Amino acid sequence: MTTFAERLWQSSKGRRSLVCVGLDPDPELMAVADVLDFNKAVIDATHDLVCAYKPNLAFYEALGRRGLDALEGTVAHIRSAAPDVIVLGDAKRGDIGSTNAMHARALFEVWGFDAATINGYAGGEALEPFLSYRDRGVFVWCRSSNPGARELQDRVVVDNGTTMALHEYLAARAREWNKLGNLGLVAGAAYPDDIGKIRSRCPDMPILVPGVGKQSGDLYEAVRQGLDSNAFNLLIASSRSITYASRDPDGFAQAARAAAAELRDGINLVLEQEGRTWDRN
Amino acid sequence: MTTFAERLWQSSKGRRSLVCVGLDPDPELMAVADVLDFNKAVIDATHDLVCAYKPNLAFYEALGRRGLDALEGTVAHIRSAAPDVIVLGDAKRGDIGSTNAMHARALFEVWGFDAATINGYAGGEALEPFLSYRDRGVFVWCRSSNPGARELQDRVVVDNGTTMALHEYLAARAREWNKLGNLGLVAGAAYPDDIGKIRSRCPDMPILVPGVGKQSGDLYEAVRQGLDSNAFNLLIASSRSITYASRDPDGFAQAARAAAAELRDGINLVLEQEGRTWDRN
Repeated sequence: MTTFAERLWQSSKGRRSLVCVGLDPDPELMAVADVLDFNKAVIDATHDLVCAYKPNLAFYEALGRRGLDALEGTVAHIRSAAPDVIVLGDAKRGDIGSTNAMHARALFEVWGFDAATINGYAGGEALEPFLSYRDRGVFVWCRSSNPGARELQDRVVVDNGTTMALHEYLAARAREWNKLGNLGLVAGAAYPDDIGKIRSRCPDMPILVPGVGKQSGDLYEAVRQGLDSNAFNLLIASSRSITYASRDPDGFAQAARAAAAELRDGINLVLEQEGRTWDRN
Repeated sequence: MTTFAERLWQSSKGRRSLVCVGLDPDPELMAVADVLDFNKAVIDATHDLVCAYKPNLAFYEALGRRGLDALEGTVAHIRSAAPDVIVLGDAKRGDIGSTNAMHARALFEVWGFDAATINGYAGGEALEPFLSYRDRGVFVWCRSSNPGARELQDRVVVDNGTTMALHEYLAARAREWNKLGNLGLVAGAAYPDDIGKIRSRCPDMPILVPGVGKQSGDLYEAVRQGLDSNAFNLLIASSRSITYASRDPDGFAQAARAAAAELRDGINLVLEQEGRTWDRN
């Protein structure tokens, strides 16, 4: 059995890319009306530049049945166009164990995702149904990138006499939960120092970093703090700045390609500055 | 506009019931194979005894398209059989605000739920899209009833020099977030003392209590601790012990009715013991 970490590394190394493209179809922003047509064009224009695609389920569910049809077609199109690219379902699912067993079945069997984002509020015991899919990646939502993220996630908690932020405690717990080696973390780009803290607590677990914009400063810090010491184990996710780079129906796919290439190259420049190469790994 | 609290009270008072029936279709436990047939039979046999139904979305999603068809048919059947009964989508959705806008659209417009359970890990700012549906109930997942719930939810946090459990802090924040009066909380029956603490922090917000079994001790404490001082604002949810009370294809619906009636009567006995009546309210 190929582990998720190995599959992520193969997909990343094959394209020299840590870019994960978020596929979040918003009818108000898409250059063409049909979601599947839109996604197919983006995928066809970018799949040689990225290690993963990340459809955000809420955007499809909000469109009702036609959204779910489009998601099904999108996953199938990725499998056909680029079979080794990771498809990560951004779902943030989480509940008690008996419900998580159903969530895991929906995410990993019905949708067939290679990985998914989940919520760990019910603790490690409740996550067993997700983790029992040994070849899939399970990313615990640890640090979000929204303006109000600090309200709960930075709350100081006490652990064995020491204090730390709640999201940092969650990262520490996640390392304990990772008995099968298929657990990762979500840590938003807006707080790069926290990515570094999470990395130091989870030295060899994959980190998904959403919310990367076009600011090279953010990107530099997010990549530098997020890299692990070996096979990178990092997915830098960008959605809008790639898929909505242009609203021209005849030009959006090429604009998406240009934006994905720029992000890939920007990340690889940071790797170079950090003395890291794809060949060494 | 009728507020969610008023609708909950009307539905509860009309049937003298705080019972919420969880509709969690599990092919391994259902007395008949077809999910919609099963749910319709349960609904027809119980709708005069309950204030709400609570389909757990994961159980439908795990069945793929036929599960989603069954959920659509189930909601339509409740609307037809008992138009004033609350339909609460148990979804535990939660993300940053832009994604929550899509979750809210899916839950409140596509599915048309009167209320939904959500996850507040991204803080109050991210919940605005849910709360902007002023006539819908939004239940923040505060305290779960699984064995491992304490791992994160009982973590001691520091707030203005005082300490409290994380779930209690979340309840305190939820009270602040409840500017439009449509926010509630989820607190599992397994930890009745915590329901009491949550109630004291949120004196007039609805509390959904899942995980009630057949043990009258649990039920007594859950109801006693959860009641508010006015219109009860309490939903006592039971799934398996009602819907799977019998596996006899010719008897499961009547068994579900008997179990729902027993739970309703058990709750009403607690109300009586506490000196509360439906007529006073």
